[in-house]
Amino acid sequence: MKKDKKKLAAVTGDKPTILITNDDGITAPGIAALIEVAKQFGRVVVVAPDAPQSGMGHAITIGKPLRLNQVHLFQDVDAYQCTGTPVDCVKLAVDKILHKKPDFCFSGINHGSNASINVIYSGTMSAAVEASIESIPAIGFSYLDYSFDADFSLARQVASEAIHKMIHKEIPQKGLYNVNIPKIPIGKYKGLRLCRQAKAKWNENFVERTDPQGKKYYWLTGEFQYLDKGKDTDHWALQHHYASLVPVSYDLTDYALFDAIKL
Amino acid sequence: MKKDKKKLAAVTGDKPTILITNDDGITAPGIAALIEVAKQFGRVVVVAPDAPQSGMGHAITIGKPLRLNQVHLFQDVDAYQCTGTPVDCVKLAVDKILHKKPDFCFSGINHGSNASINVIYSGTMSAAVEASIESIPAIGFSYLDYSFDADFSLARQVASEAIHKMIHKEIPQKGLYNVNIPKIPIGKYKGLRLCRQAKAKWNENFVERTDPQGKKYYWLTGEFQYLDKGKDTDHWALQHHYASLVPVSYDLTDYALFDAIKL
Repeated sequence: MKKDKKKLAAVTGDKPTILITNDDGITAPGIAALIEVAKQFGRVVVVAPDAPQSGMGHAITIGKPLRLNQVHLFQDVDAYQCTGTPVDCVKLAVDKILHKKPDFCFSGINHGSNASINVIYSGTMSAAVEASIESIPAIGFSYLDYSFDADFSLARQVASEAIHKMIHKEIPQKGLYNVNIPKIPIGKYKGLRLCRQAKAKWNENFVERTDPQGKKYYWLTGEFQYLDKGKDTDHWALQHHYASLVPVSYDLTDYALFDAIKL
Repeated sequence: MKKDKKKLAAVTGDKPTILITNDDGITAPGIAALIEVAKQFGRVVVVAPDAPQSGMGHAITIGKPLRLNQVHLFQDVDAYQCTGTPVDCVKLAVDKILHKKPDFCFSGINHGSNASINVIYSGTMSAAVEASIESIPAIGFSYLDYSFDADFSLARQVASEAIHKMIHKEIPQKGLYNVNIPKIPIGKYKGLRLCRQAKAKWNENFVERTDPQGKKYYWLTGEFQYLDKGKDTDHWALQHHYASLVPVSYDLTDYALFDAIKL
């Protein structure tokens, strides 16, 4: 029934409902860029955190209640800010705002990379994962420029390209995708490249400080360590002027090990 | 070099260093049960959250500093409580307490299931994932009894069984494992069973309330929806009186979809 409706929408030009969220918060320039793109494809509803939630991973809010407040930030777009995490936003949007599943969910555009091992820590991607668990076709977008004043021209172009491919089923709608966009001049962009998640890790290096009471505290910092040699990875693609598209699974079973173990 | 040392420790009886953490907080009975078991296998160091962190997923603390305080809670065990998430605890333990990687990391015993889709939301499992990213052999343990007064006898027995298997390389040490323990009388326990992650989801149902100022707020609740028919899943095993052991991967690439897509 749902599929028929979606097919009909594509044929007749009926507008799909598109849920937009992020982890940098509803006032971040990246989400404004994504909304601008998504409006060309359907009716956009925004439910996003009221404050930055970077590094929140797949956190949900259990021990305290959540608030939702309508805001007037984007022209012709229903928008709500939420006190919870990106995953909370998706759950609340489906249950309390849309009262049904949207046709698509797009998350981002994140200020900073979620390629490689960053996908594990990313609130942006976890929102997309949550949508996919709900069988909503979903993409998370991230741009490799952390700055607040970043130029989102190329990021908008890539988001438009990927959303077009998903809506027109050039990539399977049952899928969940992690799209990262390189920080390069727009003229040097080579295209969207199918990739796997690169092997890498962060080497922690906590900065130790002492407060005025003489007690120690620590700031998390780290250095990215690349551990992959493949040319089929997201990291390789981004370094070679491609945007990367990684199909993502939330079945975490390590099947290679599953086959190797005898208990 | 590290591997040789580990081999030597196994041969000579030198005690391995075991890092213990959890997501229910350092005062939870589950972590005390795990420490009791782990002490039989090596030198135990505890770094755990100072407050419950359930549902924190793979969250890390970026926007604020972290505190670490030594506590005297467990006999013959160095223990520290941390203001951060379970993942922060692992990162801080390696960088600021042990100043090297421990030989093993065990997380839990969680009060409540982390089988099936719960693995995605679990702080307990994310701590184990973080250790595995650091190449530390790791297991997360969860017991299907939420109660504070739960009887951990069977959970301790299963934890001991799984830790023994890992230390004696009956399961690959390069692996990362999600072990769940059923809530059954100890006499009915059938053994540790190799499983894959069951397909399932939570159907959200937010409870809506109104505060004394007339504003709405929401509590997250949900209903578990089982979507799998296999007998090789963790959910099936737990329902049939087995403890489940799922090898876990943090390469989230959906390789089936990767092979199916042409961009």
